Amino acid sequence: MRIGDLSRETGVSVASIKYYLREGLLPPGERTSPNQARYDAAHARRLRLIRALVDVGGLSIAGTRDVLSAVDDPAVSLHDALGTAQAAVMARTEPVEDEATTRAEQTVADLVERRGWVASERNPGYRTAVDVLAALERLGGERVAGLLDVYAEAMDGVAAHEVAAVVDTEDRERSVERVVVGIALGGALMAALRGMAEATVSARRSGLAPDPAGVTGSG
Amino acid sequence: MRIGDLSRETGVSVASIKYYLREGLLPPGERTSPNQARYDAAHARRLRLIRALVDVGGLSIAGTRDVLSAVDDPAVSLHDALGTAQAAVMARTEPVEDEATTRAEQTVADLVERRGWVASERNPGYRTAVDVLAALERLGGERVAGLLDVYAEAMDGVAAHEVAAVVDTEDRERSVERVVVGIALGGALMAALRGMAEATVSARRSGLAPDPAGVTGSG
Repeated sequence: MRIGDLSRETGVSVASIKYYLREGLLPPGERTSPNQARYDAAHARRLRLIRALVDVGGLSIAGTRDVLSAVDDPAVSLHDALGTAQAAVMARTEPVEDEATTRAEQTVADLVERRGWVASERNPGYRTAVDVLAALERLGGERVAGLLDVYAEAMDGVAAHEVAAVVDTEDRERSVERVVVGIALGGALMAALRGMAEATVSARRSGLAPDPAGVTGSG
Repeated sequence: MRIGDLSRETGVSVASIKYYLREGLLPPGERTSPNQARYDAAHARRLRLIRALVDVGGLSIAGTRDVLSAVDDPAVSLHDALGTAQAAVMARTEPVEDEATTRAEQTVADLVERRGWVASERNPGYRTAVDVLAALERLGGERVAGLLDVYAEAMDGVAAHEVAAVVDTEDRERSVERVVVGIALGGALMAALRGMAEATVSARRSGLAPDPAGVTGSG
């Protein structure tokens, strides 16, 4: 199919498709004339994946490029693809060298040991956790930092289910794709459910009628 | 203090400070001459909050403006501030009208009823959950969608702790600030811990040595 047909089939504008081609996210079509190329079902599928990662998963273009490279490279294991996808969805923090960071490093090291986690400083979550805890201390957010074990317990509960759901070994490319989709969209889904669960608790505390926390803030 | 002192005290560049002033995130200093203004400790504090929301919480400039308006407006209740902060951290999804969306709407309505959540379609999480589930179906991510109740259970577990940690009533502005910081940075912290918990499960499944899922993907 031509680029216009690809656009119609996927609902992605021709301008966006050209952008993804330029950025190397979408492989080029088969050239049929100097100005035209032909695309196939694999392009449509890849385009849907790009849109889901960018629009729904909130990944940057660079992060999307990283995870798509992992999908396409047969040398990348499922385990490494998981790490790449995690790095792409994680907050990109700038480490600050101060006492708050030093204390946060100790807090995370203790947490990893307490929970028996297999995670070194090279794990993208490790550094992010340090930087978030340090930022919380600088802002007087100690009460949120105090939820560390509550969060860790909840994440241990979901992680086993998540990895079991996304990892299987019959088809490497499809399986890596599922890992990438699962990490990115699973995280977005969890954040959405957190919003509803918190609104429920907050509404009950405030004694509000059941229509709280609208986008407009006027609930 | 002058803008250069504010920059040194907070570690934020003068160019960034000027950008936040132009974007209305940071209130103007007290003008002392046509080219100079004086800033105080409240500016330094606000600047640290802006950086944490943008860099660590991953909020957009528009989202940051929304939550800061909630902090500054005495008419905004804690409950509404929570909704504004949730909308700012949530994936910004584009609804697609298709059968996958229709099915996802039913799935979320059933979930809300099953869990006894106080959340209507106006809750920012509600619409995002629908859009993420629909995107998962379109991508063949049904196994991740199947974790809906696992995620919901985990989020119910954290939400009660989170709301109790951030909400109190002695000082409205500080309390709203804590809600905003808690929603944005608490979410980033949870995502970081999810990364470590998943890496641990994945490493154990793969029989790997304890250094998995590096940022480089070469673990």
